[in-house]
Amino acid sequence: MLGNFSYSNPTKLYFGDEAQKHLVEELKNYGPKVLLTYGGGSIKANGIYDEVMSALSAAGKEVTELPGVMPNPTTDKLYEGATLAREHDVDLILAVGGGSTIDYAKAVSVAAWYDGDPWEKYYLRQEDPDSDLRIIPVGAVLTMVGTGSEMNGGSVITNHATKLKIGKVFGENVMPKFAILNPRYTFSVPQRQMVAGFYDIMCHILEQYLSGDDDNTSDYMAEGLMRSLIHSSRIAVKNPHDYEARSNIMWTSTWALNTLIGKGKSQDWMVHMIGQAIGAYTDATHGMTLSGVSIAYYRHIMSYGLHKFARFATAVWGVPAAGKTDEQLAAEGLDALSAWMKEIGVATEISSLGVTEDMLEGIADATLIMKGGYKVLSRDEIIAVLRESM
Amino acid sequence: MLGNFSYSNPTKLYFGDEAQKHLVEELKNYGPKVLLTYGGGSIKANGIYDEVMSALSAAGKEVTELPGVMPNPTTDKLYEGATLAREHDVDLILAVGGGSTIDYAKAVSVAAWYDGDPWEKYYLRQEDPDSDLRIIPVGAVLTMVGTGSEMNGGSVITNHATKLKIGKVFGENVMPKFAILNPRYTFSVPQRQMVAGFYDIMCHILEQYLSGDDDNTSDYMAEGLMRSLIHSSRIAVKNPHDYEARSNIMWTSTWALNTLIGKGKSQDWMVHMIGQAIGAYTDATHGMTLSGVSIAYYRHIMSYGLHKFARFATAVWGVPAAGKTDEQLAAEGLDALSAWMKEIGVATEISSLGVTEDMLEGIADATLIMKGGYKVLSRDEIIAVLRESM
Repeated sequence: MLGNFSYSNPTKLYFGDEAQKHLVEELKNYGPKVLLTYGGGSIKANGIYDEVMSALSAAGKEVTELPGVMPNPTTDKLYEGATLAREHDVDLILAVGGGSTIDYAKAVSVAAWYDGDPWEKYYLRQEDPDSDLRIIPVGAVLTMVGTGSEMNGGSVITNHATKLKIGKVFGENVMPKFAILNPRYTFSVPQRQMVAGFYDIMCHILEQYLSGDDDNTSDYMAEGLMRSLIHSSRIAVKNPHDYEARSNIMWTSTWALNTLIGKGKSQDWMVHMIGQAIGAYTDATHGMTLSGVSIAYYRHIMSYGLHKFARFATAVWGVPAAGKTDEQLAAEGLDALSAWMKEIGVATEISSLGVTEDMLEGIADATLIMKGGYKVLSRDEIIAVLRESM
Repeated sequence: MLGNFSYSNPTKLYFGDEAQKHLVEELKNYGPKVLLTYGGGSIKANGIYDEVMSALSAAGKEVTELPGVMPNPTTDKLYEGATLAREHDVDLILAVGGGSTIDYAKAVSVAAWYDGDPWEKYYLRQEDPDSDLRIIPVGAVLTMVGTGSEMNGGSVITNHATKLKIGKVFGENVMPKFAILNPRYTFSVPQRQMVAGFYDIMCHILEQYLSGDDDNTSDYMAEGLMRSLIHSSRIAVKNPHDYEARSNIMWTSTWALNTLIGKGKSQDWMVHMIGQAIGAYTDATHGMTLSGVSIAYYRHIMSYGLHKFARFATAVWGVPAAGKTDEQLAAEGLDALSAWMKEIGVATEISSLGVTEDMLEGIADATLIMKGGYKVLSRDEIIAVLRESM
């Protein structure tokens, strides 16, 4: 049953191969000082940096650069950005990159004018920004898809000292005001990062879909998004420059995690919880940590949500149902998921991501155990899932 | 291929069986004077009027009532509402009803402070409101589903003198600021109106889906929405008080026509164009005018979009594809649609709606011929479709 909820999403999106042309008009809605944040400099090689700088210049902005955002943004980097944003009294933070960069920009936006420790308040204690806090607006130019960060309030930060990688879901006041979604901007992402993003999308949908046993509209939309992703990902892995496939994947990614398909239903975020713990230990690509543990996790909980796993097999993968039990269908659905993972080339063993036997206890300890799934796992079960994933 | 587009939707939705509890807090965002508009008074019989008035009172509002909005709101009614809204200098128009009432509220919102003829400007000439026009904010309490008017800019007005029923799609500045979606508020809608709404939803999805021949994400989402609607409508026609079914249908209805599933793709609105022309001649229920002509229309254009019609059969209706040509699949898909229409009880012959042979030429003349479909119809073809629908 669809539970009670409210829905609104303030982010304005510009989509398409000319989307960046709208950047100048959007920039004009903000004051003159912009903090431009990005990652390792690939945007300089592929020309995106120049296009963004040219828009900033056309809009008459005074730009402070904050490069070097890492794949798993750290607390140290957060403190650095917060200080810079405050010192320069910036009017807008413009994030150019993938989910990590946009997640990071959101963290800086609520850290700059907060006098305490943002890691402790927002991430460790999961508090919201104080109502009188000055939150710096965030805009995004997306160059890698997967996290949906361009249209949601999600922000994941890693504390290396305590080996904790924690996500916070902020409200509408922290979500990007606008995002530029040009599928061509994702063409130069290395294949391994590209497919990790594809699995991240699938995992976001699965975490919302594989929970509850209802006939609600959200699940039907989730099935549509998965079928689109499966279709287009098969084209994109063979030809990453296929605009149609990449554009569909970009759009699917946004809707996979902008709250819509999770509305009114229970959700199970355990794959992300385990994956984030692995991420804190290994710095492996986020999507690969998810793919690495998914199959073992789902096989572990499958019998507790058999009907939904069977539906997943038929509605998403087209497994013929005739004459089969739910057990058989559910197993065939996971086989199909596993085969697709191998086909697109994501990790299916966490040992390939640098996880070693001696880390498993620590990863299990760093895993936040959440409710919402078909089975609430014990610490021992998490270790069992991790061991099966090696 | 997903074409270029921008996306944002400012409407805030409150969904669920306690959604009306949020009305007071929303009302507080506006000035003291509210124009309350509704239809024939059924909301007084079912208690919704009392709940709304109690929220208005709790929020300290001064209420001007504007009842009597008819199923196909007229230009005369529009002029009446515009005068009233201006005379009372209202701060908010609160529409309590279905699509007609909300469509009407939008029309009044841009007519009240416009000095010319709103029918001519917005509907006949399809112009947007002048940038300096004072547009009165609109809020909605939904009591009947189908049109999606609660989260879009659509507004259909009928001019009886010229026998023209014309829709205008306004921008974000005219869309409802908020909408209260309580599935229980739809329980008392008479069965015939309820199922007409179900078909209206299906038709909105089909008008966006049955156009183009792409593999884009929008079409996959459309398939998910259709599958959800088919599933839940079968439950709701047997038990209109099934909360789960009615809530899923309500949510599907909103997403069927809030721009999302039409993003980046061509669309074909000819069933609505023909249906609206019938509506101007007969005052038949909107959804019934659409169901009345759909099968004849789709059979007429099917061969020009065969691949998509075949996909419709397999992906939406689960028609087994093995050993069949696209022609066979497409025909079976329309047979399945037709059988579902009969199952839920919507009109499949326009003669049952009061259309007589002597009206057909006039209806064809009143039909706006649009592009976007697999075949652009001539006036003769529209007459042929109408005749086949008799």
